Amino acid sequence: MQGGSNPFLATLAGIVGEIHVLTDDADTARYVADWRRTYPGAARAVVRPGSTGEVARVVAACAAHGVAVVPQGGNTGLVGGSTPDASRSEVVLSLGRMAAIRRIDPLDNTITLEAGCTVLAAQQAAAEQNRLFALSLASEGSATIGGVLSTNAGGEQVLRYGNTRDLALGLEVVLADGRVLDALGGLRKDNTGYDLKHLFIGSEGTLGVVTTATFKLFSMPRSVVTGWMAVRDPQAAVEMLSRLTDAVGERVTAFELLGRGALSQVLSHPLAGMRDPLAGEYPWAVLFDVSEASAQLDPRAAVEAVLADAIDAGLVADAVIAESARQAHELWALRDHVPEAQRLHGPSIKHDISVAISRIPDFIEQAGAALEQRMPGIQVVCFGHVGDGNLHYNQSKPAGMSDEAFRAREDEIHDVVHAVTARLNGSISAEHGIGRLKQSAFLQYKSPVALDLMAGIKRALDPANLFNPGRVLPRDLVDPTSPSLR
Amino acid sequence: MQGGSNPFLATLAGIVGEIHVLTDDADTARYVADWRRTYPGAARAVVRPGSTGEVARVVAACAAHGVAVVPQGGNTGLVGGSTPDASRSEVVLSLGRMAAIRRIDPLDNTITLEAGCTVLAAQQAAAEQNRLFALSLASEGSATIGGVLSTNAGGEQVLRYGNTRDLALGLEVVLADGRVLDALGGLRKDNTGYDLKHLFIGSEGTLGVVTTATFKLFSMPRSVVTGWMAVRDPQAAVEMLSRLTDAVGERVTAFELLGRGALSQVLSHPLAGMRDPLAGEYPWAVLFDVSEASAQLDPRAAVEAVLADAIDAGLVADAVIAESARQAHELWALRDHVPEAQRLHGPSIKHDISVAISRIPDFIEQAGAALEQRMPGIQVVCFGHVGDGNLHYNQSKPAGMSDEAFRAREDEIHDVVHAVTARLNGSISAEHGIGRLKQSAFLQYKSPVALDLMAGIKRALDPANLFNPGRVLPRDLVDPTSPSLR
Repeated sequence: MQGGSNPFLATLAGIVGEIHVLTDDADTARYVADWRRTYPGAARAVVRPGSTGEVARVVAACAAHGVAVVPQGGNTGLVGGSTPDASRSEVVLSLGRMAAIRRIDPLDNTITLEAGCTVLAAQQAAAEQNRLFALSLASEGSATIGGVLSTNAGGEQVLRYGNTRDLALGLEVVLADGRVLDALGGLRKDNTGYDLKHLFIGSEGTLGVVTTATFKLFSMPRSVVTGWMAVRDPQAAVEMLSRLTDAVGERVTAFELLGRGALSQVLSHPLAGMRDPLAGEYPWAVLFDVSEASAQLDPRAAVEAVLADAIDAGLVADAVIAESARQAHELWALRDHVPEAQRLHGPSIKHDISVAISRIPDFIEQAGAALEQRMPGIQVVCFGHVGDGNLHYNQSKPAGMSDEAFRAREDEIHDVVHAVTARLNGSISAEHGIGRLKQSAFLQYKSPVALDLMAGIKRALDPANLFNPGRVLPRDLVDPTSPSLR
Repeated sequence: MQGGSNPFLATLAGIVGEIHVLTDDADTARYVADWRRTYPGAARAVVRPGSTGEVARVVAACAAHGVAVVPQGGNTGLVGGSTPDASRSEVVLSLGRMAAIRRIDPLDNTITLEAGCTVLAAQQAAAEQNRLFALSLASEGSATIGGVLSTNAGGEQVLRYGNTRDLALGLEVVLADGRVLDALGGLRKDNTGYDLKHLFIGSEGTLGVVTTATFKLFSMPRSVVTGWMAVRDPQAAVEMLSRLTDAVGERVTAFELLGRGALSQVLSHPLAGMRDPLAGEYPWAVLFDVSEASAQLDPRAAVEAVLADAIDAGLVADAVIAESARQAHELWALRDHVPEAQRLHGPSIKHDISVAISRIPDFIEQAGAALEQRMPGIQVVCFGHVGDGNLHYNQSKPAGMSDEAFRAREDEIHDVVHAVTARLNGSISAEHGIGRLKQSAFLQYKSPVALDLMAGIKRALDPANLFNPGRVLPRDLVDPTSPSLR
């Protein structure tokens, strides 16, 4: 730490220890820019408390000095919601040192984790007790419990187990005045007053700092049937989800759509061990998992019967079921490498939209047509979670266009996609949040009534706009003295 | 309607039609007292709007006239949260005319229901599409969608499908200023700002009036294994839940504990067709359902293996599995008749507590000992949802005590039970809510930090304390000019 003579920094050092107040640019570099480097920033300091009590005292000190607090977990967010702006006036509150697994109870089927614990560590701790921590996402080795709570992260098993908010049973939160809300009980049922937990989950660090949380655990699946099928079109994908669920119930754990544009990019780049699972070149594929908790029951025959019927009905052209864990892994690798392949392919424009499941075909048709009209030859990289109505609907440039020309039209492309989403009553951010990246679209498409309520809640819980100011809700919407945006 | 010359009532009649503004005592009788008749009240008027627009205009008129609004569904609540006080100054807003099933979509697996629709009607509409509306509770023939949302009702399938809040995907809400929040999208994923839905769910009509809601649907189970087992003690019940879940996963749909005191009352009263399922007289029983969505898979053998192992291990003394739907119905009838049997038995003092599942044995032991010490011979009627950590832990009077003497000590008994609950970090209202009945215990045991946050939210959303004033949060906690309770 530099600047020990600064009274504010000295106060912080007095709370967490001098070694945990970072001010040198070399030390703060990994905390001040987001993972995608869309928002390079600079912090007054990065503070790394080691306990809930220290977090509370740091927050109180920042409040007393009028210094904004930017809570940060693994810094894997995708919307610029957990890094400081360039003003060098904000304090980054990194929860990384609070990484303990406080308690795991197989009878309760619960686990209590500090905010800085990674998702992967939580999965491993649960697995040691033969339990499933049901959150699974690409960044799980770095993403932390505090981060996934703040963004209500989704991932690849939402269809069966829900979003992060559905998995959380209780929270401990440091509030803007430095008090601690202890709602960690881990109760499955508690109807005593308003549900405060759900207010903090998904609020992207703007209402409080989650320091610890209790989560549900589930039975560890004993077998998984992983399959890949070429579906006739997105409508057939939606119908196949319904047929599969009808046959095997809520065992359907993942149901991922991949357009040929996405698969082609994965297969055309030098990524290890990628091959098309089917002989023909089909426009749409679905990758699915059906998992089973019982050692005595095997849903494979039921899945095979669904596929056979669907082939007869013309919904599915061809399909394969993995014969080994290795084959299942190879199928999933195709899906998991889509973002990396698109990065290798060149610049990309990304969307994280959701619509009602039944509107997915309409969305794909209408958004594709609108994009082609606006930018002929634009390549659509469409993949995502059909069971959640959530598509990662991305674009690569048309052949012959320069990277710069394509990037220059990013906002225009966003507008086209978001307008179609809004027309279908969808969401412009299904699982990534708002942060700074999606704020203008958020303000454009969210109802004024909802925005008003959110601003009122923010003012009630954080009247000084201490926590993550300007993220999610713009400052002038929160400031009671500013004219409303309406 | 009487009093057409009253400008306020004339305004209401202008909105909903004169026939839907009830003021005669004979007409309002069924709306002004709660179902248990603990809180006889009187209303200025009962207003029955027929559309969201009418609700909004009624709320705006009440706000303009400074008249408090008490939203009401089927009036099956257990805590006095949906009926007017005795002042004859409040307006009851009955949602009963808004009972439409607006939309059901089997591909989305969603149903959109108006607030006055009953739970039973929702179940039936879903079943016609071969889908499950997963809420099931004793009052389902009368309880309405608005009511179960306002109390976050639980019921008998929470273990598998969750509470009401877990089933809701979207809401339409009339706010205190008469505006309408339309968040009915029915999206499975939507991370655009704070989650407003969860704030209204469980707020017992104090933050807004839910007019319509979209819910998840599930696969209809094709088979159910219903079993009854005599467990050694509550600890064995908890272990059996773990063993059963380990063997068959999240198929365990219900897992209900019954103490001998509860079963004895059911068997000792003239209720049709009740008989003990087992030959011996055991102190603790568990009734469970394991349901299966697939026609091709049958978990019965796996369940039987768990029971055989448990008998060998001494956890279970005897067990029976229903051989027919009729036998399953008979087993469930024993459970479902506990409240009725207790009513026939005499006065009862009731609790609806929850603790972490693993603490259930501690709770039963400690609460039982504390009660016996306070009132020797008091009879404990203990039954409930082990999988949710939720017990309906009720008491009947000791032999020889008069009804009046027993009732006079009700608060004292509540205090004993709630103190044990609090010591074990439990909830004094697991699924019934707070309303008026549990407000003093709520204020006693809820953390001051949580109460402060709730009061701040109430002030932000309903600054005039228009909706259900004094329920859940007392007036002086909400009124910014009153001294805080802290």
